Amino acid sequence: MNKQELINMIDYTLLKPVATKDDIKAFCNETIEHGFKAVFVNPYYVEYAHSILSPHRIKVGVPIGFSLGGATTHTKVEETKEAIKNGAEEIDMLINLGALKSKEFNVVRNDIVEVVRASEGLTTKVIIETALLTKEEKITASELIVEAGANFVKTSTGFNGGGATVEDVQLIRSVVGEDFGVKAAGGVRTYEDAANIVEAGANRIGTSGALAIISGNTSTASY
Amino acid sequence: MNKQELINMIDYTLLKPVATKDDIKAFCNETIEHGFKAVFVNPYYVEYAHSILSPHRIKVGVPIGFSLGGATTHTKVEETKEAIKNGAEEIDMLINLGALKSKEFNVVRNDIVEVVRASEGLTTKVIIETALLTKEEKITASELIVEAGANFVKTSTGFNGGGATVEDVQLIRSVVGEDFGVKAAGGVRTYEDAANIVEAGANRIGTSGALAIISGNTSTASY
Repeated sequence: MNKQELINMIDYTLLKPVATKDDIKAFCNETIEHGFKAVFVNPYYVEYAHSILSPHRIKVGVPIGFSLGGATTHTKVEETKEAIKNGAEEIDMLINLGALKSKEFNVVRNDIVEVVRASEGLTTKVIIETALLTKEEKITASELIVEAGANFVKTSTGFNGGGATVEDVQLIRSVVGEDFGVKAAGGVRTYEDAANIVEAGANRIGTSGALAIISGNTSTASY
Repeated sequence: MNKQELINMIDYTLLKPVATKDDIKAFCNETIEHGFKAVFVNPYYVEYAHSILSPHRIKVGVPIGFSLGGATTHTKVEETKEAIKNGAEEIDMLINLGALKSKEFNVVRNDIVEVVRASEGLTTKVIIETALLTKEEKITASELIVEAGANFVKTSTGFNGGGATVEDVQLIRSVVGEDFGVKAAGGVRTYEDAANIVEAGANRIGTSGALAIISGNTSTASY
């Protein structure tokens, strides 16, 4: 994997609660400079980031239902629709973790189906928060995501501990098959981390440490 | 402050992403047994908690815009309306931290005004996430909350580091005056913590460690 191939896989991410408009601007300019695949910002900043990146044909993505996973389907759908109206072109939703843990699989699946429907054909990624799940739950969640018609299984939000591991990415890839997306997020901080996680089966990487990764330095970013 | 006075001030809280329906049931039963002021559960569980607690006249409260503060006003309003439809009677919203840090004070104020309006006279508390703010920002945020017509300034979500401190509660109380609500949340784990924070000016306490607090034991709960 060369540097350009890696850059084309990176969703550069800035979800810190205290990020200012100026921070978002600098972050978007870094993205333009390096040509990352997409940026991810909180819903409030989608419109602003889109206004900066749209002329450069760089997509803005949005987290939906962050960061606890306990929002209702209605709220996730409304958040998705508004984000799209504001310019979002990729949708990363958080699964209903409580429903998954309660074995209410129809609730989990329907939650995803409704957000996929609201996303009108845009790329949808569904976060399962691997660090909080058993192996069986990771498998079940990945299966539900495929059934629900989303495009990616994503490992982590970066806000609830843990992050992407080689083992989890291998497991998810084995469940979803070759033609589905797997996004590794959380804890990918070095070029070596990125190379290992891609080798394990990831085809997208979410990281706030993209600059360090492509420069070969270790990032101290945690999300 | 005797034990019953303390119990009447406690918002017993269970927002863990992995909480199951069974966990919520046990938590509601603890609340019935001890008579806490209210419970707080994630939006997905509001309807279920309300079905258990309604016969006992115990209120269900809901966090809105958790836990990053970067949701749009539209999403917060929709989330509020649906939570009320599902039985929520207290609304704890998170301020738009990015807008506050960007000095977009009209955005911050309007965000609160719209949620207060959607709350239709129910008690509204607005979280400023003290651990992420400067002293000046804490003062400004508290002033904006009073102007916007909410009922409480609340210190913390419990999810972004830090928590309620005696100094912050004193500061907020000095800004909002005697007749406004101040809710201390995050890090209140012992009876002594609770007594100190009430002495400093809090008149509501949000905690997942309520049982330990009223039994005099130290809770290891972090939110």
